[in-house]
Amino acid sequence: MTISMYGMTVPFFTRMLTNLLAIMDKADANAAERNFDTGVLVTSRLAPDMLPFRSQIQIATDHAKGCVSRLAGQPVPSWPDDETTFDELRARLNKTLDLLATVKPTDLDGSDTRPVTLKLRSGDVTLSGEDYIVQRALPNFFFHVTTAYAILRHNGVPVGKSDFLG
Amino acid sequence: MTISMYGMTVPFFTRMLTNLLAIMDKADANAAERNFDTGVLVTSRLAPDMLPFRSQIQIATDHAKGCVSRLAGQPVPSWPDDETTFDELRARLNKTLDLLATVKPTDLDGSDTRPVTLKLRSGDVTLSGEDYIVQRALPNFFFHVTTAYAILRHNGVPVGKSDFLG
Repeated sequence: MTISMYGMTVPFFTRMLTNLLAIMDKADANAAERNFDTGVLVTSRLAPDMLPFRSQIQIATDHAKGCVSRLAGQPVPSWPDDETTFDELRARLNKTLDLLATVKPTDLDGSDTRPVTLKLRSGDVTLSGEDYIVQRALPNFFFHVTTAYAILRHNGVPVGKSDFLG
Repeated sequence: MTISMYGMTVPFFTRMLTNLLAIMDKADANAAERNFDTGVLVTSRLAPDMLPFRSQIQIATDHAKGCVSRLAGQPVPSWPDDETTFDELRARLNKTLDLLATVKPTDLDGSDTRPVTLKLRSGDVTLSGEDYIVQRALPNFFFHVTTAYAILRHNGVPVGKSDFLG
């Protein structure tokens, strides 16, 4: 009748990031077929003042590693945002999946009520672990994963919602 | 150390649909300022073979009402997809929020292990309530909410992630 904090975080992150890898493989194949370099996709945006594909992947993975680290009461690993190619972005996705694979359900025990402090531009915000998941971690994560997908889709990569859902 | 099925569904739906209403208000104001009718946004898409804004709202609300109904073991209310204006889409969002407000946490008790059968194009799929949330309901819901946002943003509506997150 309840779900563990692990169950409400890691399976989402693992599933959606794995799906993104498969979506990027389809983008790769499509770029080869249409004879363009995937570097074009790396810097593509949905609006001139929105972040490019590269940043969507960087921030999605940041939210995944940030969420499990914060809930486990561990420091959030800091990774440079220096990826400029599909292969480098794939490596970042795989690095995140590797990190997620090390998280044990018991690492997140008790984190629903444990306070999580976020350093936002507007100042520090402290939320319970549960509120952090509902108000910040999952909406942010899905925002960037969906936007990454939408940028590829907008550029004609032949993917559909079944690729997104996995 | 655990979250209720209610806690992992209704607060997401309520929060994100409420934020969409506020985002649509900003789109309204922006359309007035730029002198175009929001009807243009209703039928806007990110790709010619993607669904328009209207459908993104219809499907997002379908997933919200579908999820709470299925988890509660109730029939899913069927609503016609006949909205063609911002005001009609707003009414659908409000109708969904009203429905969500009637759900009590106890209505979803035990639904984590109760089987949920989905009628997909590929055939019937049966999942536990928990797997249904992780694999289908929340990813689908966020997919359509984010895409609705992205369509407006792509068309120059001045909104940012703080509007999306609420």
